[in-house]
Amino acid sequence: MSRREGRDLRIRARAARTALAAPYTLRRTAIVSLIDEEAVAIIERNADRILDEIGMEFRNDPETLEIFRKAGARVDGERVRFDPGWCRDRIRTAPPVFTQHARNPSRSIQVGGNAQVYCPSFGPPFVHDIERGRRYATIEDFRNITKIHHQLAAVNHSGGVVVEPVDLPVPVRHLHMAHAHLTLNDKPFMGAVTAPERARDTIEMCRLAMGADFVDRNCVLYSVVNTNAPLVLDETMLWALKEYARAGQCTVVSPFVLGGAMSPVTIAATLAQVLAEVMASVALIQLIRPGAPAAFGTFFSPLSLKTGAPTFGTPEGTQFQMCAKTLADRLGLPFHSVGALTASKVPDAQAGYESQAQLMGATLAGVNFIIHATGCLEGLLTTGYEKIVMDADRCSAMMRFVEGVDFSEAAQAMDAFREVPPGGHFLGAAHTRANFETAFWMGEMSDNGTYEQWAAEGALWEHERAALRVRKLIADHEPPEMDPAIRESLDDFVARRTHEIMGDRR
Amino acid sequence: MSRREGRDLRIRARAARTALAAPYTLRRTAIVSLIDEEAVAIIERNADRILDEIGMEFRNDPETLEIFRKAGARVDGERVRFDPGWCRDRIRTAPPVFTQHARNPSRSIQVGGNAQVYCPSFGPPFVHDIERGRRYATIEDFRNITKIHHQLAAVNHSGGVVVEPVDLPVPVRHLHMAHAHLTLNDKPFMGAVTAPERARDTIEMCRLAMGADFVDRNCVLYSVVNTNAPLVLDETMLWALKEYARAGQCTVVSPFVLGGAMSPVTIAATLAQVLAEVMASVALIQLIRPGAPAAFGTFFSPLSLKTGAPTFGTPEGTQFQMCAKTLADRLGLPFHSVGALTASKVPDAQAGYESQAQLMGATLAGVNFIIHATGCLEGLLTTGYEKIVMDADRCSAMMRFVEGVDFSEAAQAMDAFREVPPGGHFLGAAHTRANFETAFWMGEMSDNGTYEQWAAEGALWEHERAALRVRKLIADHEPPEMDPAIRESLDDFVARRTHEIMGDRR
Repeated sequence: MSRREGRDLRIRARAARTALAAPYTLRRTAIVSLIDEEAVAIIERNADRILDEIGMEFRNDPETLEIFRKAGARVDGERVRFDPGWCRDRIRTAPPVFTQHARNPSRSIQVGGNAQVYCPSFGPPFVHDIERGRRYATIEDFRNITKIHHQLAAVNHSGGVVVEPVDLPVPVRHLHMAHAHLTLNDKPFMGAVTAPERARDTIEMCRLAMGADFVDRNCVLYSVVNTNAPLVLDETMLWALKEYARAGQCTVVSPFVLGGAMSPVTIAATLAQVLAEVMASVALIQLIRPGAPAAFGTFFSPLSLKTGAPTFGTPEGTQFQMCAKTLADRLGLPFHSVGALTASKVPDAQAGYESQAQLMGATLAGVNFIIHATGCLEGLLTTGYEKIVMDADRCSAMMRFVEGVDFSEAAQAMDAFREVPPGGHFLGAAHTRANFETAFWMGEMSDNGTYEQWAAEGALWEHERAALRVRKLIADHEPPEMDPAIRESLDDFVARRTHEIMGDRR
Repeated sequence: MSRREGRDLRIRARAARTALAAPYTLRRTAIVSLIDEEAVAIIERNADRILDEIGMEFRNDPETLEIFRKAGARVDGERVRFDPGWCRDRIRTAPPVFTQHARNPSRSIQVGGNAQVYCPSFGPPFVHDIERGRRYATIEDFRNITKIHHQLAAVNHSGGVVVEPVDLPVPVRHLHMAHAHLTLNDKPFMGAVTAPERARDTIEMCRLAMGADFVDRNCVLYSVVNTNAPLVLDETMLWALKEYARAGQCTVVSPFVLGGAMSPVTIAATLAQVLAEVMASVALIQLIRPGAPAAFGTFFSPLSLKTGAPTFGTPEGTQFQMCAKTLADRLGLPFHSVGALTASKVPDAQAGYESQAQLMGATLAGVNFIIHATGCLEGLLTTGYEKIVMDADRCSAMMRFVEGVDFSEAAQAMDAFREVPPGGHFLGAAHTRANFETAFWMGEMSDNGTYEQWAAEGALWEHERAALRVRKLIADHEPPEMDPAIRESLDDFVARRTHEIMGDRR
C-alpha cells in the first residue's frame, strides 16, 4: 500500500465512520451477571421481607399515603408496609421497553431491551478546566457543555443538570436549563425534579418545542428520582414522581446509596434494600398511571474505610451493577445506572482508571441507560471540561465492543492467507484493502504515534489535547435547526415564567 | 461509631488485609467469552486448513525440521504442513494446570485452571519517571523495578526483562537479570530466550538457588517465545523453546500480532492464524518432551488507521482475548495474554483509560497469566516507574472482583435492617462494626478525600503521589532471606560466566 493509497483509505474510513453514528447502540454480546437463580431468590425474598416487616416511609405527602391505602398497602403513619409480592404485581403494567423521543426524531432513544445509551453527568455544582481550575458553574458553563455534547456522536443524550448554574436564582434555573437543552442540542434530555411546578414547566416547554399533542401522547422526558436510602422517599421527589407519572413521562427510581452508611456494608444486603425501594416506588408510579414508563436505577458507592468518603471505580461498584441488572430484568424494567465515575479532582490517571472501570463494568453489565458517562470528577461534585471529551472517546470504544465479533465468511479472510506467504505482511492484501476502513475502532483522543512525533507535536498529555478539542467544539457549535416561531415561543415562556416566579425579586 | 472506634476499625482492617495477600488469585466468577460453539468450529477448521494448505515455517533449524519429519508432519524445505487434527493430537500430553515454583515456596504460582496471575511488563528498552523523563534503562533501573515488584502484593511474579539493561553488554545481560530476580525478589520469574546458552545459564542459576534436583524435577522458569507472525518461528526462538522443553521448564507460545499487518484485518482471521501458530509450536514442545508445561499466549494489537502504529485499550483487543481464551480451553492449555497496555508516553489519563480497559478485559476473559500487567508505557517501549504502582493498584481491584459476591446469610445482614429504621444510618450497626474491615476493597493510590483535604496535601495528581510511593518502596526494600552460601554461589557463577563469555572483551 503506497502512502497515497493509505491516505485515500483513511479519508474514506472517516466518512464511513461519521455515517455510522446512531442514536443508541444495540448490544449483540451477552451481558455479564454475577448472581445465579438461587441468589436471586434470596435477594427477592429479603426485599419482600423488608417491605413487609420494616416498610418504607413516604414523607410529608398525604396524597401518596392515600393512594397506597386505597390500593391495599398497610399504611401506618408515614410508614407503608407491603405484603410479599404486592409491589411486584403492581409493576407488571410498566413497559419493559419504551422510546424517549428527542426533538430531532433521528436522535430518539430506546430505553430497555438490548439498547444501550450513554448520558452526561448529572448534578455537579462545580466545573473544572485545566486552565482556570475548579470554580462554581454558571449558565454559560451549562450552555458550553450542552454544545459539546451536541457534537459528540458517542453521547446519546443531552442529560439534565449537567452542571448547576449557580449564577441563576434557584427558582428559575430549570427554565434556562430546559431552554439550553432544547435549543443548543437536539438529543433527548431530562426533566427537573426539584419542585412540581418546575416539572410542569419542563413538560410545557417540551409541548411548545415538540407539539402539545405529541408530548401528551409520548414520552419526551426522562427524569431521575432518588430515594433517601434507607427506605425513605421525601416530598420533593414524590411531587416530581407524581407529576411526571401523571403526564406519562418516564421516571427512573434510583436509590442513592453510600454502602456501609446508607445500607449495610455488603452487596447482598444493599441489593435487597435497593430492590425494596425500587419496587415500592415504581408500584406508586403504576398506581398513579398504569403503563407510565419507569426504570430501575442504582447509584451505589462503597464508603472508604480510610476517609469516610465515597469511592468509585471499585470492584464492588461493578459487582453491584452486574447483580442489580438481573433483578431489574426479573421485574421487566429497563435498568439505569452509573458510568464513568471517579473521585479524582483532576483529569489524571486516577480519573482514567476509575472511569474506565465503571464505564466498562456498566457496559458489560448491560445497563440500558448509563448516566454520568461523561465529565465526572470529584464524585460528581465537579464536571471537567476535558473529562467530557476523554470519557466520550471511551463510550465510543464501549459501543463498538458490545457490537460483538464478526465471524462471517468475509471476516474469516481465508483468501488473505492464500495470498500472503509465511513471514509476509497483509497491508497490501486485497482483503485488507477492502476492509481497512471499518475494521478496527479508532478513537479521537488517544495518541498512538511514535515518541518522536508526539514530542514534536508538543509532548501533550491527554488532558492537554482534550483542552484544545473542547475549545474547538465550543467554537464550532452550530445550533440545531428550529422553527423561529418555536424558538420565540420558548424565549417568551422563559421570560413570562421568570416574571411570574421572581416577581419583584427580579 | 466514635472517632476512636473508627480508628481502631481501620487499624484492624489494615492488618487483616496484609494477611490476605496470596501468591495468586482463584477466580470464582464466570469468564466472559464472545465466541459460541459454531464460531469455535469455524475457527478451528480454518486453523487446520491453514496448517494443512499453507503450513508454518521453522527457519534455520534443521533439527526442528527433522523432529517434525520423524513424527509424520509434511516437511518441504523449511515449510512444515500438518494434517488436520495432527497438532491437536500431539498437544494432548501438555498439562492443563501446573505449578511454577518460586524460590520462596509461599510465592509459587498455579498456571491454568481458575488461577489468575499478574506479571510485570516485559521488554522495554526505556524507562520513564516524571522527574527525569524518558531515557535508556540501566541495570540499576532493572534492580529498582525488581525491588518494587517484590513489595507489591497484587503482583504475583517478578517478570523477565522488566527493562533492557542497555548499560550491560548483550551477551551477559541475562546473568545480571536472573541474579536480580533471584536475590532482590522471591517471586517466580522468567527465563532468557535470546540464545540457548543464556537459557542454560538461567536454568543453572535456578539450580544453584533452588537445588539442582528440585529444578530438574519441577517447573521453576516460565519463558515466552514469540512467533514471527504470520506463520514463522525463527532459530532464536526455536533454540530457547527446545532448551526449556528439554529441561521440563514452561514455554509460552505467544504470537506477536499487529492486526492488519501481521494478520488479516479482522478478529476472526487473526484467531485462526494465532491458533495455527500456537498448535504447531506447542506440538513441537510436546514432541521434544511429552508433558513439558506449555501455554497458549496472545499479543494482539490492532494497527491504527491514522498512524500505522499499534493501538492499545481498544474494543478489539479485549474481544480477541475473550475469544482466544475459549480456543485455549479447547486445547487444554493455560491461557497467557496481555494486561495493562497503553500507547501513552506518560502516566496520564490515556494511560489510565487504556490500561484499565486492557486489564479488566484480560481479567474478565479469564486470562490465567496476565503479562504486562504493570508499568507499560508507549506500547512496551517504556516502563514507567509511577505506572508500576498505579497499575498494581488496579490489579488488586481486579483480584477482588473475580472473588465474586458473597450471598451468605451473614452477608444478607437482615438483622441490620431490623436495627436501623428508615432514614437512619448503618455506620454504628452491629453488622457494620463486625464486617467493616474486609467489606470493601480499598486501593492505595486513589484519592477519595474532600477537595479541601486534597488541596491541603499539595493538590497532587495520581502520578505525583505515585512518584512518592516509588521512592519509598525503593528505599524500604529489604532483600528476601537467602543462605549466604547460595548467594555466594550465584555471585561466583555470574563472575565466572561473564569471564567466559566476554574474555578479553571485558
